[in-house]
Amino acid sequence: MDTLATTRADCLALDAADPLGAARDAFELPPDVVYLDGNSLGPPPRLARERMQAVLEREWGVGLVRSWNDAGWIEAPLRVGAKIARLIGAAPGEVVVADSTTVNIFKLLSAALALRPGRRVIVMREGDFPTDGYVAGGLAAMTGAELRCVAATELEGAVEADVAAFCVTHVDYRTGEMLDMHGLTAAAHRVGALAMWDLCHSAGAVPLDVTAADVDLAVGCGYKYLNGGPGAPAFCMVATRHHERLQQPLWGWMGHAAPFAFEPGYRPGAGITRMLSGTPPMVAIAALEAGVDAWLGIDMSAVRAKSLALADLCMTLVAQRCSGLGIEVVTPRDPERRGAQVSLRFADAYPLCRALIARGVIGDFRPPDILRLGLTPLYLRYVDIYDAVEAIREVLTSAVWRRPEYAVRTVVT
Amino acid sequence: MDTLATTRADCLALDAADPLGAARDAFELPPDVVYLDGNSLGPPPRLARERMQAVLEREWGVGLVRSWNDAGWIEAPLRVGAKIARLIGAAPGEVVVADSTTVNIFKLLSAALALRPGRRVIVMREGDFPTDGYVAGGLAAMTGAELRCVAATELEGAVEADVAAFCVTHVDYRTGEMLDMHGLTAAAHRVGALAMWDLCHSAGAVPLDVTAADVDLAVGCGYKYLNGGPGAPAFCMVATRHHERLQQPLWGWMGHAAPFAFEPGYRPGAGITRMLSGTPPMVAIAALEAGVDAWLGIDMSAVRAKSLALADLCMTLVAQRCSGLGIEVVTPRDPERRGAQVSLRFADAYPLCRALIARGVIGDFRPPDILRLGLTPLYLRYVDIYDAVEAIREVLTSAVWRRPEYAVRTVVT
Repeated sequence: MDTLATTRADCLALDAADPLGAARDAFELPPDVVYLDGNSLGPPPRLARERMQAVLEREWGVGLVRSWNDAGWIEAPLRVGAKIARLIGAAPGEVVVADSTTVNIFKLLSAALALRPGRRVIVMREGDFPTDGYVAGGLAAMTGAELRCVAATELEGAVEADVAAFCVTHVDYRTGEMLDMHGLTAAAHRVGALAMWDLCHSAGAVPLDVTAADVDLAVGCGYKYLNGGPGAPAFCMVATRHHERLQQPLWGWMGHAAPFAFEPGYRPGAGITRMLSGTPPMVAIAALEAGVDAWLGIDMSAVRAKSLALADLCMTLVAQRCSGLGIEVVTPRDPERRGAQVSLRFADAYPLCRALIARGVIGDFRPPDILRLGLTPLYLRYVDIYDAVEAIREVLTSAVWRRPEYAVRTVVT
Repeated sequence: MDTLATTRADCLALDAADPLGAARDAFELPPDVVYLDGNSLGPPPRLARERMQAVLEREWGVGLVRSWNDAGWIEAPLRVGAKIARLIGAAPGEVVVADSTTVNIFKLLSAALALRPGRRVIVMREGDFPTDGYVAGGLAAMTGAELRCVAATELEGAVEADVAAFCVTHVDYRTGEMLDMHGLTAAAHRVGALAMWDLCHSAGAVPLDVTAADVDLAVGCGYKYLNGGPGAPAFCMVATRHHERLQQPLWGWMGHAAPFAFEPGYRPGAGITRMLSGTPPMVAIAALEAGVDAWLGIDMSAVRAKSLALADLCMTLVAQRCSGLGIEVVTPRDPERRGAQVSLRFADAYPLCRALIARGVIGDFRPPDILRLGLTPLYLRYVDIYDAVEAIREVLTSAVWRRPEYAVRTVVT
């Protein structure tokens, strides 16, 4: 073995010196698992248990309907939104928690078209996360808007004077590639278009400053890096400068200026509140708030430094230990161009992924041939990366992934 | 005192003979409260505690992302939908749990317009629950559809040959009046229009058979009579005969025929699954499922009989004990024409409601002058109604409701 190769002891030493090492204590993780899928579903923060118990027993059970006032339920979408705003560099009144990512994309794209009357084109990226394109397609079918889907490298050129907005994922869900938020936003503004960023793989993953980047609209996921629980509510962000003319088509009582006046006509509420539609899902928001609160006091630049270090370690170990085994890194090596994941290409990535999960190394598969490893510095250790790559090496060299049971497709991949 | 008047002992005797008396044990209720607001937010079923603990600790905490397959998360919207289908008389594949009531109304009204091409009119009821009208207004502004809002008595006449669908609440949220589902649906069908029913105040409140009534589309709330928790996911129902041509504009990955193939183009899933959009909110669905499961094995006709008896008792007691105090019953006395609530009109209903809540008698206020009492036979006793009316009498005769603190408006009324 190469004497310069990274050893497990090296990784343990890195963990011992890790300024974020104690953050792991805030999460519940099974002892026999290396969890590399926090970019799909983050693990429960320890806070979630007591928060959900409080909501169930004290607020819902004892307070009952009074808790809409007394426990601050009614303010929860804005309160948790303001906490997420800090994580993405938005102002407190620019973010609200509501619905799913999908539904928020619909609302935000509609808002973009309304903010740019006369422009009917939405620019998106080929190969972006499917739901973004599906929503835009549904909206286009309904309104006559036109979708323009281009490769990432052609995004800037595709945003022309007929474009209302582009909507792209900041960090690619498949490859982990990160786009230039400042540059693309500025390019859109030069032709009068709006910049809408999908932050599903960015919020809680990389430092964000949507204000500095002059972002117009953004959407993000609560259940990935924010650790808000399976199917947690999403968030949407609208820059203050657009609030006055902001409109979205899912008019609902919670977006009304006076929800409990029960007026027959719709009057949109002030600012970001008009992005709300139905009743806030309080049980789900309580779990999300626990996840978001686990981020309070965390230094995002330390998170970024560790996430890059974990990724470097992962890529180095794959090169050192898995060369010649048919697996390659597809995530860009340039730190400026990647998020918080490492994606590996392997022809039979699906059975490889299943074989690893059977060994407690949980990543996920993205078709056609990607094994995706999420690198989440709050609860991952350097030694976890070592053990994961070692597991990959063993599964590949032993060819255990060829066992028929690993080829059987599960519903969710 | 009138010797024929109903006494507290009479009510205790009714409770002792109540075939549904044991159902109360399935719920967590504070001992010092008479809860007459289960039509706004149902109390937690005891099952919710262990279900939410299982989701948090075992499924989310240990299973992590694997639980989408292993814990049946991915099937939850259809599984819980099938249970709700039994409560409303739909077939299992006709109901799915998703989003909020508001968002589902948007999807269903859009579906109705698509199912009746060439017809652009949606008929609604004046004074119906505001969010229904708001959503329809937003959709109309987006699509050019036309809203026709009429009084309840004019609904049948308003559904003419240019109407795509009517959408009305089956049981009025304010007065408790119940509309004729069979008759209005048949009238709509005679002119080729669709019947869409908002079941928010019906599901779990009154016996429903949407199949027998030939209902086309329906929406309902998870957090009222289904006791699914604050802001619980809603449900939507589409009759099987419409599935083949069913479309809704909130295209999302969970409504796709193959969500985990990550195909670039949207292909709607089979049947009711295409009503899904974003990722299912599992923590919230777990609470909802506990609420729905508390209904399993309950005889709905016994529920209806008791709910009518509770309402009769309430109206009788108000007549006996509150006459001359300025309060009157507005809910129809005809059992065929009312749901599971009694609404009382009092000029200063808001401070009256607050004064009652301060005494542990929790109803709610609906502007301008309605004190609304929800009658939920699973956990309400006859003696609760007695105590509630007695509290109303005392608060009115003592004029304690005139205290300034009860006039202070809370955010949520």
